[in-house]
Amino acid sequence: MPTYTAPTKDLAFVLNSIIDVQNSDIPGYDELDPDIINAVLEEAGKVSSEILAPLNTIGDTQGCRLENGVVRTPDGFDTAFKAMKEGGWTALDCDPDYGGQGMPYVLGTAVGEMFVSANMAFNMYQGLTHGAYSAIHAHGTEEQKAKYLPKMVSCEWTGTMNLTEPHCGTDLGLMRTKAVPQEDGTYKISGQKIFISAGEHDLADNIIHLVLAKIPGGPEGIKGVSLFIVPKFMVNDDGSLGERNGVSVGKIEEKMGIHGNATCVMNYDDATGYLLGTEHKGMRAMFTMMNEARLGVGLQGYAQAEAAYQNAVAYAKDRLQGRAVTGAENPEGPADPLIVHPDIRRSLMDQKSFVEGARAFTLWGASLIDRAHKCNDAQADGLISLMTPVIKGFLTDKGFDMTILAQQVYGGHGYIEEWGMSQFARDARIAMIYEGANGVQALDLVGRKLALDSGKHVMGFFDMIKTFIAENKGQDAAFDADFLDPLKAASKDLQAASMYFMQNGMKNPNHALAGSYDFMHLFGHVCLGYMWARMGKAAQEALHSGTDDAAFYETKRATGRYYMKRQLPATALHLARIESGADPVMALTADQF
Amino acid sequence: MPTYTAPTKDLAFVLNSIIDVQNSDIPGYDELDPDIINAVLEEAGKVSSEILAPLNTIGDTQGCRLENGVVRTPDGFDTAFKAMKEGGWTALDCDPDYGGQGMPYVLGTAVGEMFVSANMAFNMYQGLTHGAYSAIHAHGTEEQKAKYLPKMVSCEWTGTMNLTEPHCGTDLGLMRTKAVPQEDGTYKISGQKIFISAGEHDLADNIIHLVLAKIPGGPEGIKGVSLFIVPKFMVNDDGSLGERNGVSVGKIEEKMGIHGNATCVMNYDDATGYLLGTEHKGMRAMFTMMNEARLGVGLQGYAQAEAAYQNAVAYAKDRLQGRAVTGAENPEGPADPLIVHPDIRRSLMDQKSFVEGARAFTLWGASLIDRAHKCNDAQADGLISLMTPVIKGFLTDKGFDMTILAQQVYGGHGYIEEWGMSQFARDARIAMIYEGANGVQALDLVGRKLALDSGKHVMGFFDMIKTFIAENKGQDAAFDADFLDPLKAASKDLQAASMYFMQNGMKNPNHALAGSYDFMHLFGHVCLGYMWARMGKAAQEALHSGTDDAAFYETKRATGRYYMKRQLPATALHLARIESGADPVMALTADQF
Repeated sequence: MPTYTAPTKDLAFVLNSIIDVQNSDIPGYDELDPDIINAVLEEAGKVSSEILAPLNTIGDTQGCRLENGVVRTPDGFDTAFKAMKEGGWTALDCDPDYGGQGMPYVLGTAVGEMFVSANMAFNMYQGLTHGAYSAIHAHGTEEQKAKYLPKMVSCEWTGTMNLTEPHCGTDLGLMRTKAVPQEDGTYKISGQKIFISAGEHDLADNIIHLVLAKIPGGPEGIKGVSLFIVPKFMVNDDGSLGERNGVSVGKIEEKMGIHGNATCVMNYDDATGYLLGTEHKGMRAMFTMMNEARLGVGLQGYAQAEAAYQNAVAYAKDRLQGRAVTGAENPEGPADPLIVHPDIRRSLMDQKSFVEGARAFTLWGASLIDRAHKCNDAQADGLISLMTPVIKGFLTDKGFDMTILAQQVYGGHGYIEEWGMSQFARDARIAMIYEGANGVQALDLVGRKLALDSGKHVMGFFDMIKTFIAENKGQDAAFDADFLDPLKAASKDLQAASMYFMQNGMKNPNHALAGSYDFMHLFGHVCLGYMWARMGKAAQEALHSGTDDAAFYETKRATGRYYMKRQLPATALHLARIESGADPVMALTADQF
Repeated sequence: MPTYTAPTKDLAFVLNSIIDVQNSDIPGYDELDPDIINAVLEEAGKVSSEILAPLNTIGDTQGCRLENGVVRTPDGFDTAFKAMKEGGWTALDCDPDYGGQGMPYVLGTAVGEMFVSANMAFNMYQGLTHGAYSAIHAHGTEEQKAKYLPKMVSCEWTGTMNLTEPHCGTDLGLMRTKAVPQEDGTYKISGQKIFISAGEHDLADNIIHLVLAKIPGGPEGIKGVSLFIVPKFMVNDDGSLGERNGVSVGKIEEKMGIHGNATCVMNYDDATGYLLGTEHKGMRAMFTMMNEARLGVGLQGYAQAEAAYQNAVAYAKDRLQGRAVTGAENPEGPADPLIVHPDIRRSLMDQKSFVEGARAFTLWGASLIDRAHKCNDAQADGLISLMTPVIKGFLTDKGFDMTILAQQVYGGHGYIEEWGMSQFARDARIAMIYEGANGVQALDLVGRKLALDSGKHVMGFFDMIKTFIAENKGQDAAFDADFLDPLKAASKDLQAASMYFMQNGMKNPNHALAGSYDFMHLFGHVCLGYMWARMGKAAQEALHSGTDDAAFYETKRATGRYYMKRQLPATALHLARIESGADPVMALTADQF
């Protein structure tokens, strides 16, 4: 069975040395001194490896069962969920006014990585609740907030997001679920929603569904969609639970992975709903939480890669097979461990350099969300809005690829469920799909975000890279060659791609959209290259200042060099594809396929 | 549920126009006139889509069950297996001396593609038998051949290959299974073998296991391995079945995919075995069938991609979601079909251009195997030996990637097992692992095949490409620009990579091995680019000569252009990685991971 060791040291390195939380002006960051960070990470790491990880295989094997309208979660999930609640982990970055601990989102994200690595399916019960919490927090009335939030912060009640219907997922304008206004100000919600994660389960006393629906007579399409709070059990004024509402689970889907999380078909039959926010502005309300939600999915991508990587390393050190081509390294044994072989190294370095880069990128993104929210910083908000599709799309694509690499290290055993490597890949696979399939992320990036505020944010991104290079160049020839020169080249490719879109996308938008997926990956590489340059610099500085943990920083630097040498050059390929334009892509008519 | 339509037209195009079977001097190819080809492909296509494909989901869902030492295959497998036998499909390219039909291997390969696309797990029962048939055919005594082959050609008896043991897969020198010589010339085989596909099942009267084992006192390691025939039921001299032999199934593995095929732990307890070939030369005997076996696995990679692609196209045409950015294409409907979106096109074109290129590459490889065997052509044998790891490694890696792309087209539905797209990915995944994991293929390519016969075969490959370009250049500027120039550039990258290995691999073999995986992919792209150039030329010629099927050839040409523009440029990235050498890859010590 796979194991998981929380990478607390690396998380602390990113928070302390890259995000530099102690020197940040973001309100609340001043509380994050190294001791607090270590204490929180260590404790969360313990929960992850000792409570959540051992349930991961069980969740996959048992899955969820629908019995007489009740969904049973896998053995042990209830005890673990109780431990999460009692440990205060569900409240970590929530508003103290509603029982939260008010810690920065960046710390919640670091902790979340460990929970997700240890047990992605389990953590979704809490993750979805957090999303619903954020929506009510941002758009609810004082009364709604007082009624729902405290119980959601503590996860006594969990939450869901209901968007998709059988005939529409991406194109929510086609939605059919209806919300008929009642005289008492409530709405009667009727319709069917699908793919509802944690839609029904036995871990909480109540479930607060957030449901998108159309009020009859409202505007056509996406502009007529409103958001509603639909509790599973009605909530009395004193906070006690009343009657069962008209919402029920139709079935649980059989999925490729995340079996421990119940993906439900939800049927709404004249269920009582309460408008959340403004009529017909439901999509806007959803959008305000989108950066967070999508960052959380991007995190799932690399968090699964991290867990898979750890096990691949252990197997590569343990499994004896073949001899090093440069001479036996375990001459006493019958064979050398797999890790002596260059191609196994290549695979492990791909994984390691991706995961560590992705971790820095994601936590940096989380700090931008903190800055946007806590400082009302429009520039930070614009930058994270631009990068959100990159975090979501690139990190989940690559994260999945890395789970496949990790599985491959096991050879035949990787294909056997008992060894657990298949689960990492199967679980990671969903992250490329939900919360906006990655093709939709690419469309969002190229079709919306690039041009946002007249392209101000992408220009800001380029400036930031340029400034970083200018500020650090010329101090150390090796650092320049290893980190800054490749970053500069990659950033140039990204600029050339943006330029191509500007010059050709106006004539024919297909010229931009045909290259959107490659652009998302190109952008992702530049972001990870930038993160590695910053980490390389931090490592360099630590080594120069005579750290007593030289091994850690040397490893960091070597891992960064690998990324710059072996991964970053992919930007040129993406650029070449982008510059080939729409013609090869759109050459066929539909019936020629 | 997914469907499958046999691509008979495209298979015939490759056989007729690319392999040019009618003008070949390979014995037996003269029988393959277009009518015969069409008749065989059509009939096999019918079997595939009507009998095998409908059982694919059933096989995945039910899997195989071990009940009191007997393995039960999924519902319908027995009837379908009977149909395969009765249709003579198991005998297609087998030796007429033993009841085969003596058709060329290239035709068997074309037929095999359809069977594998329709139902990979099912087809393995026959596929493994064919492998065992080939081994006995090549190395058996006349008596052994007479005894086993007729029943294996008809698949009344099936076959298996027993190599892997719990502690060794790639490194078979560590093998522990023993074969103790008996006075009557037989051997007593004892040991445990794992991952034995079709090791036990209810589809045949007998199972002929080919087992690698060590004769005590023989040479150490891989040089002391011999190959044995171990029938499940002893075979009497009159061909009737005798007692049960000392071989039994220990368990069936729970796997990520190919659930319809029983992957068994096989226990040998003083089982009676018959030496096949020469003592201690078991590995050499296995190697003689390796090109075929590995080509068959490469085929599985693209065959799963083909099946997944077909369903992705159907879904993309059917599912209405969003509007074309250039204006509604289905204005009467609530939305446009997915296929209008450029990023969906990109995905479908990636899939289509890969599958068709891979098909040509594989059938070309099969024709080289025919030439090597039927003409005793050492050059053909050297070339296919060189390309075998590329066919196996590149086509299974890319084939798997394409099933993931196809699954992605379905959005959330792709993740739900009911829709069947997950199965294509889960089934395709094994092809990257078995028959030598792809990292081992890369090692075989760079560590052995490149230098084979002093590099003669790789030089021959370069010459072939060069000659093709020289012979076709200057006749049509568009063809030159679309096909020949990119092929030339890609081939130059491959030559540069080979040169890098030659110049640096001698100093330190890690410089070659650290780039082996990229080299395998670089080589694969050049091969597919070469195939596309040949197909582009064939399409060009057909269009110039006024074909009455212009749509087919125009589609072919546009698909080829796509490959050359959007896929082939990957060679530069692979070269850049290769030329970065071993240092970044090997920079860390094992404990730094």
